Amino acid sequence: MSDSESTGSCHLTARGAATRARIVNAAADLIYACGVDRTSLDDVMAKSGVSKSQLYHYFADKDALVLEVITLQSERVMTAQQPHLGAMDSLKALRTWRDAIVQLNQRAHTMGCPLGSLASELANDSETARKRVAVGFAMWRDAIERGLERMRERGALSPPANPQELAMALLTAVQGGLLLSKTMKSNRPLEIALDMAIDHIARHTASQRSPGKKH
Amino acid sequence: MSDSESTGSCHLTARGAATRARIVNAAADLIYACGVDRTSLDDVMAKSGVSKSQLYHYFADKDALVLEVITLQSERVMTAQQPHLGAMDSLKALRTWRDAIVQLNQRAHTMGCPLGSLASELANDSETARKRVAVGFAMWRDAIERGLERMRERGALSPPANPQELAMALLTAVQGGLLLSKTMKSNRPLEIALDMAIDHIARHTASQRSPGKKH
Repeated sequence: MSDSESTGSCHLTARGAATRARIVNAAADLIYACGVDRTSLDDVMAKSGVSKSQLYHYFADKDALVLEVITLQSERVMTAQQPHLGAMDSLKALRTWRDAIVQLNQRAHTMGCPLGSLASELANDSETARKRVAVGFAMWRDAIERGLERMRERGALSPPANPQELAMALLTAVQGGLLLSKTMKSNRPLEIALDMAIDHIARHTASQRSPGKKH
Repeated sequence: MSDSESTGSCHLTARGAATRARIVNAAADLIYACGVDRTSLDDVMAKSGVSKSQLYHYFADKDALVLEVITLQSERVMTAQQPHLGAMDSLKALRTWRDAIVQLNQRAHTMGCPLGSLASELANDSETARKRVAVGFAMWRDAIERGLERMRERGALSPPANPQELAMALLTAVQGGLLLSKTMKSNRPLEIALDMAIDHIARHTASQRSPGKKH
């Protein structure tokens, strides 16, 4: 690659950053479709249109590239849920987010969660990769938790509710629902899982604890 | 292999059946630890102590072997949950099964579900494999559903409850919980997921619908 593309590993020119991003994007798409093991660096070079020397300029080896794919997929998954994830502050908003997730799954032909697939493939194999996926899941759970905190601040969630545990419960429902949907080739398992998790949260709403009030 | 091991593909002698089972067991263990793609037929031969000609006598190719691994893991997963899965007829029995699942996960060092891992790796790749995994999940959901039906027969589940959907909800919680536990290296996500699903079922118990009664 030319010197103009990069000024070293710590600082990338705009063109260098674009090349690097093109490599990670291509690798993420290939890995989502075929898995980490079935995706070779040759496949990544072909799809991104970069040479071997360019690829090795940015990534020491496949493991280093896979770590960046995990980070990219964590970001993609979060972005795909916006604006609904960031707007979660009521049961109604939670249900709007639920509908968005179900639609995303349908549009993705129930291919499963990009982050969940990486978790399943890598978590027992590489501690570094497992921890990187765990960071992605933690970001996701934290975003849900912040939504539940906003619900609590608005009085929609009762004070004894534990937003961190409720957020984890919701995330397990998303993951289990997506995996069963992928296997059954039906959106129904995801819908059932999300509705269970939202009912679970609804049980902790202030209105649920005051039987006289509507919710 | 010797003629005494097998009398053909339709009928196996005891010795032939034992050899075949040894191959599938070895492949299942390797695939659980490393995934399908990282397990070669050479690995399976080495672990099971069979020759190439023996292996190809029983299995046309790796795909054929993997299908048998899916079936074996479906059976193993069901067996591991006994006697609790078959004894499910009350909320108390459901909670005993929940504790057993959590213990199994701890004993397996939160390595994840053997069937869920196969689902994640294979469902987008091979329709034949996806359908075989779906059969395994359907068996599992059916077993839970039968437990919920028994609860309903005993009056523990209210008549409008839908045992099939509740069973699917519980299975998504198991799968999502096991995947998050595998990634976080903690039993907690599984516990949270199972407790959510059991609370969900408890909402459909007869006692829940009669507020004056304890449950």
